Amino acid sequence: MITITVIGSGNVAWHLIKQFAQNPLMHLKQHAGRREQQDDSFKAFGVPYTTINDLEPTDLTIIAVNDTAIAEVSHAIPYTGQLVVHTSGSMTMDILSPKNNRGVFYPLQTFSKSVPLEFKKIPICIEAIASTDVNMLKKVAFALSENAHEINTISRKKLHLAAVFANNFTNHCYTIAQQLCQEEDLPFELLHELITETAKKAITHYPDQTQTGPAKRGDQQVLETQEKTLSNAAHKIVYSTLSKAITTFYGKKL
Amino acid sequence: MITITVIGSGNVAWHLIKQFAQNPLMHLKQHAGRREQQDDSFKAFGVPYTTINDLEPTDLTIIAVNDTAIAEVSHAIPYTGQLVVHTSGSMTMDILSPKNNRGVFYPLQTFSKSVPLEFKKIPICIEAIASTDVNMLKKVAFALSENAHEINTISRKKLHLAAVFANNFTNHCYTIAQQLCQEEDLPFELLHELITETAKKAITHYPDQTQTGPAKRGDQQVLETQEKTLSNAAHKIVYSTLSKAITTFYGKKL
Repeated sequence: MITITVIGSGNVAWHLIKQFAQNPLMHLKQHAGRREQQDDSFKAFGVPYTTINDLEPTDLTIIAVNDTAIAEVSHAIPYTGQLVVHTSGSMTMDILSPKNNRGVFYPLQTFSKSVPLEFKKIPICIEAIASTDVNMLKKVAFALSENAHEINTISRKKLHLAAVFANNFTNHCYTIAQQLCQEEDLPFELLHELITETAKKAITHYPDQTQTGPAKRGDQQVLETQEKTLSNAAHKIVYSTLSKAITTFYGKKL
Repeated sequence: MITITVIGSGNVAWHLIKQFAQNPLMHLKQHAGRREQQDDSFKAFGVPYTTINDLEPTDLTIIAVNDTAIAEVSHAIPYTGQLVVHTSGSMTMDILSPKNNRGVFYPLQTFSKSVPLEFKKIPICIEAIASTDVNMLKKVAFALSENAHEINTISRKKLHLAAVFANNFTNHCYTIAQQLCQEEDLPFELLHELITETAKKAITHYPDQTQTGPAKRGDQQVLETQEKTLSNAAHKIVYSTLSKAITTFYGKKL
């Protein structure tokens, strides 16, 4: 039985603890955070809480905190010689204190405590130096997901950046669409089917094969009219930048 | 029984004909196009094909062609005094020839012949001047979908623009993510769960409530590092524009 510690009180920590707490193959021994008291949202999992200073050694320690706090937290861990990983897509292993063996356990998904997830489909990207550490991370990752991969730092950073486009930027495009609906008192629900279908198409086909719209067609007249229709300067900039990116990508001249 | 003509050989025409051909409440009398011969993809529906000049009057004529061809096609229709509509999100009714009654029948979805759709959920935006015309369009729209709405030109144009953000721009963000994966020989499939979840969250919650990532947090260090990681100049511009749009939207200063 692999013993595990999770450090952190955010969305990733919450989802990992939820998974480990109900997994018969893993023993989630303790939960730690920078606060004196455990956040209420974690209480239902029944995992003992401690401050980082009072942690006891476990086979694996997962630091699931903001990128900027990882180094400090890893230094505060009171034991040495164990495997300690972070869950960040964009950070190297080297930011972790060298007093423990270092690694990465990056679940590639958007996490909110309030939104349930089918965890077994989530890709988990693992990285470590020693093969025994890689093997342990594989065992833990496959206990949670069918979709575990050993991915090096450069590839993981690129993948994280791809995720920024596929999630953060996509979601902001949805947000602008939502605002445009609000401007006309139209329910955002009118766009639900389109959003679902667009995502579905990107998965059943490849997105570069299913691009449509005035920018793809190089329809300058519609592009100019639509940009003028936008009253919000921030929307205009996103509109013109993405339209130009699309026309260029598909070799259209305006 | 309402008699219907569909003009056009593209994706929207194909999906409308597929729906009408199997609908017991509607009589799809004829299919017309600018070509002499019917495109092979329409043959299976068994609807008689003619050129536009040879069309016979029907209660409703739906022009499902590119925005730039609508006016010309509407003028080429040999009859007068019937209801003729286009399917464009971004065009007024006025571009249609005034020799027939004018209207709009805009299905808000992304259409490809190769991708099956659950048509009854697709919002159909209708518009016409006379109430008898509006009523006929409602009847036709509700025969295909549970989701028909009377929406005026200004609102429809704004909705179409919202759809450009929710579909065209989102899909190009997926495409850039796909390219970034290719650069590292990573399978695009690694992002499937994230894409699905991001779309699902935008529907179960509102997108402005679920934004995450470095731009939302105003994390300048990660933003600078990520932008540097991008080797493609076109990707860099999309990255910086959308990151700035997000930081501004959420009131973060860099």
